[in-house]
Amino acid sequence: SYRVENQRPALAGFAVSSTSCLCVSFRGVGIKQKFISVGHEMNGNLMDFLDEPFPDVSTYEDFHTIDWLREKSRDTDRHRKITTKSKESYWELIKSLLDAWSGWVVMLLIGMLTGTLAGVIDLAVDWMTDLKEGVCLSAFYYSHEQCCWTSNETTFDDRDKCPQWQKWAELMTGHSEGAGAYVLNYFLYVLWALLFSFLAVSLVRVFAPYACGSGIPEIKTILSGFIIRGYLGKWTLLIKTVTLVLAVSSGLSLGKEGPLVHVACCCGNLFCSLFSKYSKNEGKRREVLSAAAAAGVSVAFGAPIGGVLFSLEEVSYYFPLKTLWRSFFAALVAAFTLRAINPFGNSRLVLFYVEYHTPWYMAELVPFILLGVFGGLWGTLFIRGNIAWCRRRKTTLLGKYPVLEVIVITGITAVLAFPNPYTRRSTSELISELFNDCGALESSQLCDYVNNPNMSRPVDDIPDRPAGPGVYSALWQLALALIFKIVITIFTFGMKIPSGLFIPSMAVGAIAGRIVGIAVEQMAYHHHDWIIFKNWCRPGADCVTPGLYAMVGAAACLGGVTRMTVSLVVIMFELTGGLEYIVPLMAAAVTSKWVADAFGKEGIYESHIQLNGYPYLDVRDEFTHRTLATDVMRPRRSEPPLAVLTQDSTTVEDVETLIKDTDYNGFPVVVSRESERLIGFVQRRELTVAIKTARQKQDGVVSSSVVYFTEDNPQVAEACDPQPLKLRRILNLSPFTVTDHTPMETVVDIFRKLGLRQCLVTRSGRLLGIITKKDVLRHMAQMMNQDPESIMFN
Amino acid sequence: SYRVENQRPALAGFAVSSTSCLCVSFRGVGIKQKFISVGHEMNGNLMDFLDEPFPDVSTYEDFHTIDWLREKSRDTDRHRKITTKSKESYWELIKSLLDAWSGWVVMLLIGMLTGTLAGVIDLAVDWMTDLKEGVCLSAFYYSHEQCCWTSNETTFDDRDKCPQWQKWAELMTGHSEGAGAYVLNYFLYVLWALLFSFLAVSLVRVFAPYACGSGIPEIKTILSGFIIRGYLGKWTLLIKTVTLVLAVSSGLSLGKEGPLVHVACCCGNLFCSLFSKYSKNEGKRREVLSAAAAAGVSVAFGAPIGGVLFSLEEVSYYFPLKTLWRSFFAALVAAFTLRAINPFGNSRLVLFYVEYHTPWYMAELVPFILLGVFGGLWGTLFIRGNIAWCRRRKTTLLGKYPVLEVIVITGITAVLAFPNPYTRRSTSELISELFNDCGALESSQLCDYVNNPNMSRPVDDIPDRPAGPGVYSALWQLALALIFKIVITIFTFGMKIPSGLFIPSMAVGAIAGRIVGIAVEQMAYHHHDWIIFKNWCRPGADCVTPGLYAMVGAAACLGGVTRMTVSLVVIMFELTGGLEYIVPLMAAAVTSKWVADAFGKEGIYESHIQLNGYPYLDVRDEFTHRTLATDVMRPRRSEPPLAVLTQDSTTVEDVETLIKDTDYNGFPVVVSRESERLIGFVQRRELTVAIKTARQKQDGVVSSSVVYFTEDNPQVAEACDPQPLKLRRILNLSPFTVTDHTPMETVVDIFRKLGLRQCLVTRSGRLLGIITKKDVLRHMAQMMNQDPESIMFN
Repeated sequence: SYRVENQRPALAGFAVSSTSCLCVSFRGVGIKQKFISVGHEMNGNLMDFLDEPFPDVSTYEDFHTIDWLREKSRDTDRHRKITTKSKESYWELIKSLLDAWSGWVVMLLIGMLTGTLAGVIDLAVDWMTDLKEGVCLSAFYYSHEQCCWTSNETTFDDRDKCPQWQKWAELMTGHSEGAGAYVLNYFLYVLWALLFSFLAVSLVRVFAPYACGSGIPEIKTILSGFIIRGYLGKWTLLIKTVTLVLAVSSGLSLGKEGPLVHVACCCGNLFCSLFSKYSKNEGKRREVLSAAAAAGVSVAFGAPIGGVLFSLEEVSYYFPLKTLWRSFFAALVAAFTLRAINPFGNSRLVLFYVEYHTPWYMAELVPFILLGVFGGLWGTLFIRGNIAWCRRRKTTLLGKYPVLEVIVITGITAVLAFPNPYTRRSTSELISELFNDCGALESSQLCDYVNNPNMSRPVDDIPDRPAGPGVYSALWQLALALIFKIVITIFTFGMKIPSGLFIPSMAVGAIAGRIVGIAVEQMAYHHHDWIIFKNWCRPGADCVTPGLYAMVGAAACLGGVTRMTVSLVVIMFELTGGLEYIVPLMAAAVTSKWVADAFGKEGIYESHIQLNGYPYLDVRDEFTHRTLATDVMRPRRSEPPLAVLTQDSTTVEDVETLIKDTDYNGFPVVVSRESERLIGFVQRRELTVAIKTARQKQDGVVSSSVVYFTEDNPQVAEACDPQPLKLRRILNLSPFTVTDHTPMETVVDIFRKLGLRQCLVTRSGRLLGIITKKDVLRHMAQMMNQDPESIMFN
Repeated sequence: SYRVENQRPALAGFAVSSTSCLCVSFRGVGIKQKFISVGHEMNGNLMDFLDEPFPDVSTYEDFHTIDWLREKSRDTDRHRKITTKSKESYWELIKSLLDAWSGWVVMLLIGMLTGTLAGVIDLAVDWMTDLKEGVCLSAFYYSHEQCCWTSNETTFDDRDKCPQWQKWAELMTGHSEGAGAYVLNYFLYVLWALLFSFLAVSLVRVFAPYACGSGIPEIKTILSGFIIRGYLGKWTLLIKTVTLVLAVSSGLSLGKEGPLVHVACCCGNLFCSLFSKYSKNEGKRREVLSAAAAAGVSVAFGAPIGGVLFSLEEVSYYFPLKTLWRSFFAALVAAFTLRAINPFGNSRLVLFYVEYHTPWYMAELVPFILLGVFGGLWGTLFIRGNIAWCRRRKTTLLGKYPVLEVIVITGITAVLAFPNPYTRRSTSELISELFNDCGALESSQLCDYVNNPNMSRPVDDIPDRPAGPGVYSALWQLALALIFKIVITIFTFGMKIPSGLFIPSMAVGAIAGRIVGIAVEQMAYHHHDWIIFKNWCRPGADCVTPGLYAMVGAAACLGGVTRMTVSLVVIMFELTGGLEYIVPLMAAAVTSKWVADAFGKEGIYESHIQLNGYPYLDVRDEFTHRTLATDVMRPRRSEPPLAVLTQDSTTVEDVETLIKDTDYNGFPVVVSRESERLIGFVQRRELTVAIKTARQKQDGVVSSSVVYFTEDNPQVAEACDPQPLKLRRILNLSPFTVTDHTPMETVVDIFRKLGLRQCLVTRSGRLLGIITKKDVLRHMAQMMNQDPESIMFN
């Protein structure tokens, strides 16, 4: 089973030279992987062993697919046993109640740990980001804001300046202005950035190679029923948390949202190991992980409902209603733990709290939809560019030097980012400023409008004003920042450090949206009499909110990249807290999805799954080809016949030879080779253990013993004959079958919905072949003209 | 197929004497129902017919279960054909694009019609509710509020009084005060109520018996894949809309939310008939209906996200991601259409808009959780009481007089409701008042606090004050109203008029919550020094918001009755528009669910489904018994062998006899009776049509002709032999099979997830029996010690 202790620093180095986080390192393993014997001594005699259910440990090997139906029936067995026992004594009753409540306990723990980690990450990122610029003299562990907030000498007009906070140049040379100070600050900014990113990539390389990337493609794959040992281990949790702080602080164009989902899932996996109900059942474990993913998004944005919907829409594979409630609970606990820690210092849950005072007008839907188109185009550009670059990384020498790559990209980012005030600060601060409406007290350059001196200044309802010089220079800087972000993000996502793409995508959209917003606002101000403005924008009215355009643009770009729709709108809606803006957001999100879908159906996560060849059976892909099961099943016409066992004529030696010569996960059992009538399916690993144990413990079992899978007791003809070996107990009498005429679309549906690992193919009751999940995936890839060999074995 | 035109007034009377909306009337039909021939002339010769896919019309009979897999594969075929054709010409390409967009068009239409109907219903209910008390002289079609709102003589202090609005007594006798006027008003109030409810029940009885009840149990059943012709017909739509207005206006303790979902689904069904993609495929139709349900809840509460989640959590059976997006779109369109109509006159979307100004405190969780417990107990009491009463209605004479029952209950309700101001007004007004925070300008009796004359009165932040006499008398009236509502709601839900239970349940919770809220508030005011209040409730602070308690209570009671959790909290959250109160709501909702679940797992909808014996396979019920497929399949040991056809030795006459003698929906085809090896499954209705057509059109097919299902051409021995009839084209070569050893939990899972209609049971390739959905349901009922015979045939 999925053992979190498995990954240790000493073992972890094996994958560091791979170009993707996981992919290349997988390729070599597995097909010829040696069988790892169960490290578990059998007690008692054979009959006991056969009466007991098969030991649970290590049921699945690494990089194998789980069988959902089997996991589910194992859990039902367990549950049945507990229910029966609970009637025996009070102690058992209490144990059964504890078992029933353990799900909620796990959720509580996950929520609390995820919330705490998110709070710690926020605080640390805040401090380290500011450390690139200067230091707080009153207490070095204060961030810029905290430093000036605690200072008494801060004036209201210039909240960002206080004597306790000193920039590096000021601290070192005493001069805070001038070319020398600028160069020194510039130099130290780049230096700190390089240091942080070097630390991050080194930690990932040495201690936990799985900690790199966003983690969402891999988590999607794991949740769909794949085993990647150590991907959600304790060590990954620790390193990912630390390196996430370093990576974000280094100023690279990446966000913390995706990695926070990975961190939350690691927490989920950690707490699973407390309860055998979850640690010993891969199906149940995945229910917990789905909920953990919801908690991760919940703390990333402060949007619990959005988090649950994200887990439902984007990440999860199997999401029963029970998981919906539990996810919601975990997401809430996480959000409230984060609020208790209060890293933003404003007791707000959400990452970007905004409040707008003006409604939107129908005519504004045109620019909103244009932003949606922009978002879709950006999504397409980003996915194509990023995938092309990642493929290059996989296939060329580039992949051999991950540390150098990170250092170079960090250097370029820092050098280009410092001169522009909009790229110098952290991306989330930038988004926050772009989203904000210009109130009367706003000191930002973006709010440098020409005020009419005759007008009184109410706090909220400020009429449209002509833009001042600050706004125009801000527009230029934003345009440069937009180009910079678009290009650098394509190269950043996928490097060997933790990197999320929510924040950079939102930044691109927010910049574009704000620019459009200001343009519309100025157009409306200067051309009140145009027909389109006449109806809703009288002179002196506050009719256009550029911040809303930024938010709509952010939603559009995020939608274009990830293809989320409902969860995206809900997250945005939770950020603004008002139903009023659902229509603009929805219009932009749907447009961006349509535009992006026109260029390619896959979102960034699916593209990375495909690039890395994970065995992921997407629920959304519709399989519409006319092939039949007989076209997909193995053996093909040219191949040797299927390796089967017979119910009463195979010897122990035959079985052992078969196990040695093949690497199948299991073997069908038939009545006889002539009739080919199927009676069951036996797992390779259960067969191996059973024979091994029998040879050790059971007298008279030798190589020539006949293995019986029949119900009746075999009749031993003579005393001198070798003892037969009865193995009906390990035979699965209800293997899943389809006929050879079943359309592949039905087979794909069955594999998806029931989570099968393999399926036998029959015709009029005769066994013809077998279809595994891998065969299905390979066939689907073939039908879509992709390279079928890129899919990992399962 | 599901033809909406089927139900006409003249036909509709057949079910009026049944005690439940649907149940008894179903019992007699079906098992011996005559085969209705396809009213569709076959054109061309037999080969054409066999080459063409089988005609789509009337694939399923009334009260039958659909086969989801088959519907899906039919849709894929259709899609494949369109895609192939679209490459042929521009016109076909345009047609294929139109086809791809038809889903969104249907959603748009559903949203617009649902929103419009909801707006009209709101306006009509408003007017007719006020008509019970008086009339507007300036325009008789104005409601009380509209009347005084348009009047110039309304003062701010007494918004509800204006000379244009006259109570009946004032209009008739000229006196507005005094005992005589009171009695006259009382009398007319009761009379109007009786008139409205009589009209409602008569319309339902005569024109559309399916229009009664909430409709949600039936819609759940339909969405799970059951055919009830006419349940979503045009006639039902019209009558349900009209009678809903009448029923709500009559002042009965019922709400419009459930029926609005039914109305929305009728709209969905209506627009399905515009596109053959939806009208000819029961699976696709159900996707549209799921989205329509979301639109219904969206307009009922003004909560689009809550509506989508309600559809997902509570109503839908098959909810792919595509449907999630479309539901969201439909819900949004519906909400905005409603807002455009603006029935509440405040351009708010939501039914009960509230804004609270005070945060909640940790210590308040104790009363919130107590409200949760109350909600759970109320849920249990309501479900048990209501089900017991409905069972009584089904089994005793009571069911024979639905009109009388409605009249009597209306009479009792009206007589008891008039004297109490909290029950006299409409329930949604009552809830709205209970939710509201007492601002400075509130004139309600509930806000009659003793004001401190020394304090300035800010608009929002009013400190806690001692309760005045108005509050105390309001408390008494509320307590009486609570008892009245609890009792009368149990008897009202399930009568033969449209009736939802959201509003009455919320009213019960809101009353209880408000009472608790005022109690806590007064305790905190009078006992500032108690430890529990000391930390957060200083004198002069505004620390307790009784309106919030009302809202929490409403959520708890609604949760106890329906067992919704996530969608409930989201609906409540959309009503308040603030994340701040999610924790109290969640705590109450989860507590109420736990408490109610302790007394019985089923919510009110599931209980009604069970009571009426609908064939509904609940996704949430876990089947944990140890039975195997062999225990459930038919034929049982004592029964005659399974009716099968052989592939090459059955004559036309044999087949016709089999069809006449049995009422099975289909027959398995085996190689021969000796080997019993399964080769396929043939539908009864396709077999009948094929033989009928062949006898008419194909020469040489007589009673002694042999029916061939084999692939190869049968060899006719001699010329004088009758012509063979080849029927391989109608043979389903991929019937679903399981082995006899398959645990029933797996079988149940397969039926649920794949939406099967039947499944064949084999052992080592030999056909043993068949399991239908009805067998599964019957077995599940048996295992849960329910009456298995209560389940409707399918």
